[in-house]
Amino acid sequence: MDKEKDSKEDSNKASISRREFIKLSAIAGSGIAIGAAGIGLFGGRGSSQGVSSHTLDAKAEAVPMYGEHQAGIITPQQTYMYLASFRITVSDRASLIRLFRDWTRFSDLSTAGGTMQTGDNPLLPPSDTGETLDLPAARLTVTFGFGPSFFNEGGKDRFGITAMAPLYLKDIPRMARDNLNPALSGGDVCIQVCAEDQQVAFHAIRNFTRLSTGMAALNWMEEGFISGTAGKTPRNLFGFKDGTANALHQTAAGYDEVVWAADGEPDWMKGGSYLAYRKVRMLLEMWDRSSLTDQEDTFGRSKESGAAYGKSNEFDPVDVSQMPADAHVRLAKQAGQQIHRRAYSYTGSVDPRTGNVDAGLLFISFQKNPDLQFLPMLQLMQNQDALNPYTSHVASALFACPKGLREGQYIAQNILEA
Amino acid sequence: MDKEKDSKEDSNKASISRREFIKLSAIAGSGIAIGAAGIGLFGGRGSSQGVSSHTLDAKAEAVPMYGEHQAGIITPQQTYMYLASFRITVSDRASLIRLFRDWTRFSDLSTAGGTMQTGDNPLLPPSDTGETLDLPAARLTVTFGFGPSFFNEGGKDRFGITAMAPLYLKDIPRMARDNLNPALSGGDVCIQVCAEDQQVAFHAIRNFTRLSTGMAALNWMEEGFISGTAGKTPRNLFGFKDGTANALHQTAAGYDEVVWAADGEPDWMKGGSYLAYRKVRMLLEMWDRSSLTDQEDTFGRSKESGAAYGKSNEFDPVDVSQMPADAHVRLAKQAGQQIHRRAYSYTGSVDPRTGNVDAGLLFISFQKNPDLQFLPMLQLMQNQDALNPYTSHVASALFACPKGLREGQYIAQNILEA
Repeated sequence: MDKEKDSKEDSNKASISRREFIKLSAIAGSGIAIGAAGIGLFGGRGSSQGVSSHTLDAKAEAVPMYGEHQAGIITPQQTYMYLASFRITVSDRASLIRLFRDWTRFSDLSTAGGTMQTGDNPLLPPSDTGETLDLPAARLTVTFGFGPSFFNEGGKDRFGITAMAPLYLKDIPRMARDNLNPALSGGDVCIQVCAEDQQVAFHAIRNFTRLSTGMAALNWMEEGFISGTAGKTPRNLFGFKDGTANALHQTAAGYDEVVWAADGEPDWMKGGSYLAYRKVRMLLEMWDRSSLTDQEDTFGRSKESGAAYGKSNEFDPVDVSQMPADAHVRLAKQAGQQIHRRAYSYTGSVDPRTGNVDAGLLFISFQKNPDLQFLPMLQLMQNQDALNPYTSHVASALFACPKGLREGQYIAQNILEA
Repeated sequence: MDKEKDSKEDSNKASISRREFIKLSAIAGSGIAIGAAGIGLFGGRGSSQGVSSHTLDAKAEAVPMYGEHQAGIITPQQTYMYLASFRITVSDRASLIRLFRDWTRFSDLSTAGGTMQTGDNPLLPPSDTGETLDLPAARLTVTFGFGPSFFNEGGKDRFGITAMAPLYLKDIPRMARDNLNPALSGGDVCIQVCAEDQQVAFHAIRNFTRLSTGMAALNWMEEGFISGTAGKTPRNLFGFKDGTANALHQTAAGYDEVVWAADGEPDWMKGGSYLAYRKVRMLLEMWDRSSLTDQEDTFGRSKESGAAYGKSNEFDPVDVSQMPADAHVRLAKQAGQQIHRRAYSYTGSVDPRTGNVDAGLLFISFQKNPDLQFLPMLQLMQNQDALNPYTSHVASALFACPKGLREGQYIAQNILEA
């Protein structure tokens, strides 16, 4: 990719000039229209000369944004994640297209490790908020998804795209043990941002929010982390490995089987995936007082090794007959379906009355058919899972993440201009 | 240090048996008294055989816990921090000593990269919550501090230590622009935990809380991050470098001058330091709409390079005559005092009415004399700082952090048994 190209093409479907983007983003940030001249080029991070001198480690790497699928779905999990939900506040399709073009251009720039230059006109707000000026790409990925209300909000076809809705997109039905906060659930659009550096990840969310001024508003934002040990299954805050079963489908054929939407879906969704989100508060204080036997019976696995009951190693095949009827892993297996887990832990505020910490899991899974793969599993677990006394589901959402982009396309272009 | 020694010494001042610690922690966790036999040894993280096979990077390193000073004060900043505040809920000194001994032993273990073994008696809660079983020390540091109420709470000498109070420990006086939440301010004891891995840091806070059951309660906990680029001054969420002035005193003599409490202090505080904490919400949405000129005038430095006005490089000496009268850096210089800054950024929840994000700075500075070094600077800035329209101080605390420990001592031993 030629990062300094200065194309003047500007049809809706054509490739995008980076120079023009600075103009657009300056307008979005300030409300003042300015000419393109003298606004400067995009600098690489690290210096305005564009060369970064960081050592070659994971933090310096860039994950390609373009391809058959969006990044951030089967990409090996980065250490940090922000998940943000927006509601669209404009009603015309032209504004929406402008927003998605801006967002796409910013994604292109930031996932490559670039930054909008601080600006040559000091009387305008800087094009970029600046906190990543010295930082590399840090494996930043940006994954867009659309909620049911994007296609149809209470019967209203806001953008004339109801007919474009994907097959399985609907709000997750109310579950028996739900304790959901509507202010932290759902939304028209989600952006999942992941990176090896929290500042790089937050910078992206912040600038997406900024670029959306007047067109969309942030509903909620969650931040999560995993422990950063490469090649090992991360442990959740119950101290158990989380994501072991992903090993069952981590091949191209496996991903086609489990993750990538296909038959019967509209074209824009073929190669996309459904993101299921549940914010699961974990009652750590209660869990920490339960015995090791109780904890292991609850999961059906050894805490230290991660091996299923009756087995020796983490990745040995599960034999459900070896574990209690309500063990989490047994129920997951019993559901008979695979999902691609990509969960993060969260920690938050202290309840001043109890001293208990609000902490838990930002459960995220990707699947091609949530009706088949996810909802029955969720329902089974809500009814029977031995984990239930230790958890509370406090937020929920389902988003349809489109297939990947070719350079020059913008996100949702094949929905809005199909 | 011999990590497997099994000393039976058990006077209050003698060295501590690690085997005994497991016993104590099991008791603390479960309320069940058990014998020492068969409880198991401490395993190294990564395997129960105690050998970690991680690559040699910053995450694998251990920061020594013992020495003249506590770690986490002049230690180069790790990527993550949790700051937790506790109130002591017992009134007898013996319980307090037990708590501090447990906390010290857990600090010793966890900063060395060890973990309490999951346990040989499965009918008890595991000694350790387990989420760091596969993780290295990750440069974990633990820094203890004591608030004014620890020595005297509303005139009451709870533990018979009022006479041991250090010279300058008092609540930070109310400032003109304070917007403080008392539930997020102050406390009897603070524990600052820093690490290169957020899960390692949270694990420590969680187990400190667990070990305190029945003796202390968590008041509040904050979590912060900096960008992980070694050797560069981190940028705050306003996009400016934060901590450049630390370079002025980063020598042994400089630390003696600025950080380490000395003359007139009680013995336990000589070599300690005062931790000043302010949670400063940054109004990012407002800031991001201000011009580059406004932003640079506000700090008195170039945003990109960090150079003071009239200078070319970040570390060039500041000339206040070159910058506006109310510039942040000018006022800091005008106060005529140095402090050792060790701040972290935080990001949090979204205000559903406005879509604004609660984000900002967990300002932390260490100084030997807050009356001289910190409070006048804070007052000057609260009255005049050009940053004020963009910030709101929402929490506050001052803690006295004792000098360092020798192996075998417990934290506050030289206060409680002086």
